[in-house]
Amino acid sequence: MTLKRRNFLKAAGGGAAAAAVLAAPAIAQTQPKVAWRLTSGFPRSLDTIYGAAEVFAEHVKAMSGGNFEIQVFPAGEIVPNPQAVEAVGTNTVEMAHTCSYYYWGIDPTFAFGTAIPFGLNARLMNSWLYEGGGNELLNAFYAKHNLYGMPGGNTGVQMGGWWRNEINSLDDLKGVKMRIAGIAGKVVEKLGVVPQQIPGGDIYPALERGTIDAAEWVGPYDDEKLGFYKVAPYYYYPGFWEGGPCVHFFVNLEKWNGLTPEYQAILTNAAAYANTDMMAKYDARNPTALRSLIAGGAKLKQFPAEVIDAAYLAANEVYDEIANENADFKTVLDSVKAFRNDGYLWNQVAEFTYDSFMIRNRAKG
Amino acid sequence: MTLKRRNFLKAAGGGAAAAAVLAAPAIAQTQPKVAWRLTSGFPRSLDTIYGAAEVFAEHVKAMSGGNFEIQVFPAGEIVPNPQAVEAVGTNTVEMAHTCSYYYWGIDPTFAFGTAIPFGLNARLMNSWLYEGGGNELLNAFYAKHNLYGMPGGNTGVQMGGWWRNEINSLDDLKGVKMRIAGIAGKVVEKLGVVPQQIPGGDIYPALERGTIDAAEWVGPYDDEKLGFYKVAPYYYYPGFWEGGPCVHFFVNLEKWNGLTPEYQAILTNAAAYANTDMMAKYDARNPTALRSLIAGGAKLKQFPAEVIDAAYLAANEVYDEIANENADFKTVLDSVKAFRNDGYLWNQVAEFTYDSFMIRNRAKG
Repeated sequence: MTLKRRNFLKAAGGGAAAAAVLAAPAIAQTQPKVAWRLTSGFPRSLDTIYGAAEVFAEHVKAMSGGNFEIQVFPAGEIVPNPQAVEAVGTNTVEMAHTCSYYYWGIDPTFAFGTAIPFGLNARLMNSWLYEGGGNELLNAFYAKHNLYGMPGGNTGVQMGGWWRNEINSLDDLKGVKMRIAGIAGKVVEKLGVVPQQIPGGDIYPALERGTIDAAEWVGPYDDEKLGFYKVAPYYYYPGFWEGGPCVHFFVNLEKWNGLTPEYQAILTNAAAYANTDMMAKYDARNPTALRSLIAGGAKLKQFPAEVIDAAYLAANEVYDEIANENADFKTVLDSVKAFRNDGYLWNQVAEFTYDSFMIRNRAKG
Repeated sequence: MTLKRRNFLKAAGGGAAAAAVLAAPAIAQTQPKVAWRLTSGFPRSLDTIYGAAEVFAEHVKAMSGGNFEIQVFPAGEIVPNPQAVEAVGTNTVEMAHTCSYYYWGIDPTFAFGTAIPFGLNARLMNSWLYEGGGNELLNAFYAKHNLYGMPGGNTGVQMGGWWRNEINSLDDLKGVKMRIAGIAGKVVEKLGVVPQQIPGGDIYPALERGTIDAAEWVGPYDDEKLGFYKVAPYYYYPGFWEGGPCVHFFVNLEKWNGLTPEYQAILTNAAAYANTDMMAKYDARNPTALRSLIAGGAKLKQFPAEVIDAAYLAANEVYDEIANENADFKTVLDSVKAFRNDGYLWNQVAEFTYDSFMIRNRAKG
């Protein structure tokens, strides 16, 4: 099956093109030296999600031949932990890598950048962002906060957290004090849960002492490090409030606009690489952690249907309430809902039946 | 929630860093002019999959400030259609964007770069490639053919093709002449199907005349363009032979090794962007096409369980036969199988139950 090279060269005029490559001299160009700082929204210990910012910075540096350096700092080191996005907006730091939905208190529209309960799964989230108008809608909103955002990582569907007691009915949720962040807190509040905002490092002692009854975090790989299974063994799924949470790279808008087109392209592509790579890492790391957690005593449980059904209705109530008062929220919500409806129309056909078979078959051995 | 900028600068020594950015002069650097040609394995009409090479070339050009230009040619224009990979190996063209599994006749190990029947879904494929050793294993193999490969697109689970008649049992497959490519042909052959290799453009007339009884292609968006629903209305799913087919960018190995580190990084990141973007486009475009196909008379059908079960056993027989004779094939097969087993262990927990709920709930309205 060896090709006759002569023919191809003739057919495409490739001889001339090849000669041009050889003859072209190295030319001088100027790309400015840039040194930026990036604050992560995460501690170093969450190496997958924190590491995505390092992957991004390494790729930017490599592509720019060392001219564009981005120094990555863990949460809290140069910016107080929950204020990364404001710090970028005011250009205290040029960049952040964090979850948009941490900032839903400023405006609930921030939630869509990461995830809303019963939103898009990771693949549909990428599709909405890159090809469904999501990035454009979000950046129109982020611009109001002097930010430019790029998708920069995903965890996939998260787990439903660690619970000290079993949940067998909707009644079992009443009065449960749960560490759960953002708009998801408002949703489960409608079911009787008392949402608590607690930083990652304080969750374990709170669960151990019984100050709280449950806590959601991420998924097996990250959860294992924090050891929750020792004090709250019921590990529920799915985390219906985080179907495909995206982590964003945020750039100060003037800094973004001031970059050369080359550097804008380099940042865009490095963010896309980090986006895919973080999801790839979680999928590669979670299985081992899941096995280890179960061996350590974690009891894997699916949320009862009536809990998820009630949560879905509660989520829609929350969305309606916010959308009535916030035009930006309504615009993005309408886009996500329409995309979700279409996305699952297609997902249920080939994708879901394929995975169903593979899962059933795996169980058979 | 406005931050006090002064404090951050003090805390991080950011004042000096900020000053350094302002003071740095534009410096001269040299990056060579490069002009390469890329042959796509696809016609222009398949705009999503063909377009991924254009997206790649545009991003490379933008990141290099116009210094690295890659001209994209449709299949057959500068290289005979099924010989793109050989043309890259011999450096007749520097690059190709095509499916590795088209070359399984040279060595069946080529199949793993794209998909094997009952292999990884799109997300697991990315995870295996980027983080599960897949890229390294494949490139060790590709190097024997003077190639360097990078993931450059995915279609997700494909459809099971267009059939002139309903398939209600395994018996209905006996003697069916089906256009199906590669290793999948060997699998369905064990079930009595007579596999046919027919180029895309010749499928429609063959189906219309009844020269063949069935043909697999891609999914709704691409399939609609070829109009198969008019002559073979039964549209089966899932395409169990293509759970997450990846399209590769192939570079001539010496050309790859001769690139500057900057250009290697730029190509790597542009390929990752194209990889994510192609999947995003298919997920955004397939739903509308699916609706339109059904409105046009396509009859959506799921393969009977006994067909898929038998195909799974047949696939394992085929793999065992090849692995007994081909050490490279066995090495990669073992890696894929182990990754698949772990991947679906985790997939079935949060991911699958989330999608299940979303699909059931969508059906309820």
